[in-house]
Amino acid sequence: MTPSLLAQLKSKLRRRLLDAILISQPHNRRFLSGFTPLDHGIEESAGLLLIPRKGQPLLLTDSRFELVAGQDAPDFEIMVHRHGVVDLLKKLFNRLQIKRCAFESHYTLHATAAKLQEMARAQGVTLVPVTDLVEKMRLCKSRAELEKIAQAVLLNEEIFQETYRQLRPGMTEIEVALQIENRMRRQGADRPSFETIVAAGPNGARPHAVPTSRPLKEGEPVVIDMGLILDGYCSDMTRTVVLGSPDHQTKEIIRLVRRAQLAGMAALQAGVTGRQVDRAAREVIREGGYGDKFGHGLGHGVGLAVHEAPGLSPRATKKLQAGMVVTVEPGIYIEGWGGVRLENMVVVEEGGCRLLNKDTTFLDI
Amino acid sequence: MTPSLLAQLKSKLRRRLLDAILISQPHNRRFLSGFTPLDHGIEESAGLLLIPRKGQPLLLTDSRFELVAGQDAPDFEIMVHRHGVVDLLKKLFNRLQIKRCAFESHYTLHATAAKLQEMARAQGVTLVPVTDLVEKMRLCKSRAELEKIAQAVLLNEEIFQETYRQLRPGMTEIEVALQIENRMRRQGADRPSFETIVAAGPNGARPHAVPTSRPLKEGEPVVIDMGLILDGYCSDMTRTVVLGSPDHQTKEIIRLVRRAQLAGMAALQAGVTGRQVDRAAREVIREGGYGDKFGHGLGHGVGLAVHEAPGLSPRATKKLQAGMVVTVEPGIYIEGWGGVRLENMVVVEEGGCRLLNKDTTFLDI
Repeated sequence: MTPSLLAQLKSKLRRRLLDAILISQPHNRRFLSGFTPLDHGIEESAGLLLIPRKGQPLLLTDSRFELVAGQDAPDFEIMVHRHGVVDLLKKLFNRLQIKRCAFESHYTLHATAAKLQEMARAQGVTLVPVTDLVEKMRLCKSRAELEKIAQAVLLNEEIFQETYRQLRPGMTEIEVALQIENRMRRQGADRPSFETIVAAGPNGARPHAVPTSRPLKEGEPVVIDMGLILDGYCSDMTRTVVLGSPDHQTKEIIRLVRRAQLAGMAALQAGVTGRQVDRAAREVIREGGYGDKFGHGLGHGVGLAVHEAPGLSPRATKKLQAGMVVTVEPGIYIEGWGGVRLENMVVVEEGGCRLLNKDTTFLDI
Repeated sequence: MTPSLLAQLKSKLRRRLLDAILISQPHNRRFLSGFTPLDHGIEESAGLLLIPRKGQPLLLTDSRFELVAGQDAPDFEIMVHRHGVVDLLKKLFNRLQIKRCAFESHYTLHATAAKLQEMARAQGVTLVPVTDLVEKMRLCKSRAELEKIAQAVLLNEEIFQETYRQLRPGMTEIEVALQIENRMRRQGADRPSFETIVAAGPNGARPHAVPTSRPLKEGEPVVIDMGLILDGYCSDMTRTVVLGSPDHQTKEIIRLVRRAQLAGMAALQAGVTGRQVDRAAREVIREGGYGDKFGHGLGHGVGLAVHEAPGLSPRATKKLQAGMVVTVEPGIYIEGWGGVRLENMVVVEEGGCRLLNKDTTFLDI
């Protein structure tokens, strides 16, 4: 935890008259502490942070993660609970004289909160639900974070290129997805940031298609949407490729989606709203005659989570800030025919945006 | 949803004076409805069930899953929400005259429950938290479920055997894990039921080791813990293999763990507690002089979830029932040396248990 992050968080606690905050959301936990283990679902947490307004922050975990906690989070005091985390928290509330403690309402189960509340009430402690206090601190990326994201994007592109060069008609969607995910793991990614999408021909009409045993065919569009996690940070990239020569309609649609992407990027800068950016791209697709075939938002934030704030969509009314990282991913989806989506990642800057992708395959069809 | 399951659930609602129950836990949702999509974490649910005491059960989802919902859950009325699920629930509470509705406290976020509560209060509806109402219905497997689990175990063993035959000194743990998971996906599994563990030599001392780039060496124990999901149901199996000839100590420890496993299985039958079974196996390891090297419970239930009730451990005081499926997985873990774990799956029956595994590799060292 950098001293400035800690100071920022402590000042938030002071303003809200909180003695401490309990962090359960896994990305927030990693962001603040560096602790890398994953939860096996929300029901099996690898650890919690307890950050008091005064004194050293604590990482509460169980014996499985004691060693890695010490390595990952040198600024934190590591406490291992043997009789459940509620029991340990009870002792810590007393020892640290915590009377008002925030908890992450958006990442705490109702049943867990009920148990915590019961214990807290008996100790005279008030638990205060908060929702996006740390998420707001994650919105604008530091220089070190931007460097990690750029590395993830770079590795993503290398793996895409290696896979693309070996694509042949007859390979199945599943086979292509497996090749991509195997390369990710062999080439040092932590893991994919989501299940790779390979959607050939008509299957591309569903934006969230799951790979099937359908073979790739010449001439049809194949949507490849892939992301990986490298040193904790995510990439997310989509290309739509065609084996052999695309027909006239396919070319026309790819060009239209590309123009929409460029229009979105041209509108992107600090101070505009996500809605304005979305509208700039959507307008191009509408004018091209496919307005009702672009059903999702234009983009989303990327960082420790592959989907995070801010969104670029008709509902996004907040102003973008320099240092945010977002995808720009317009698409056209036609039932029975297929889909085309192009997705790049950019950093929001004053007066414009900086493209993180270098790969231009198929962007100039 | 079979008519008998529905009747069983409705009678539970009647006894608790509930008009309906809202199901958010993904395995419970699939168990009751057949709906197969996965959630992208608890924050991005693929759908909810609303099961009223009277009338047809409902599946509430969004447009992404409308088609698959109709295919997967023919007994349910599919309702697609366009303005959020809380808005749809509000209308349904009114239309179906629901005044007391249960929700799954153990799989609902505190923030989500708060929103639901606010809406419900305004409608004069009482929300009642419940925790393991449906989980209890999942404890004893039906004949059809046992058949699916047996198929998953069979495929697991095939893949283990294929992989084992190709193991060579110098292959890394990651490479072996990748081979296993690729075979799972190529041979029809839905996905792995957990991240495959391949832990060679000293790495085996950690029961939850993550595969590393350490190469396999001759003579050392390699723990391979692997599971897959086939048609929704899980397998979970561990073998400890040795390339070349195991030394005396390794052989002795493998034999001791195997004897503990057999003792656990001999103690397993309907009517005994999980603690009794755990003790039978633990006693063998204690007598062999490794009592402090077996730190985890002897086993856990397996079904739609790879870890579910009942547990076999010193804390498991409930009686086992016929039709439950559990693992029997004693282990010995020695810091600096490594680990040995052997894991099979069995069905609890009256007077004994039925082994689901056929593979006996290394069990007779």
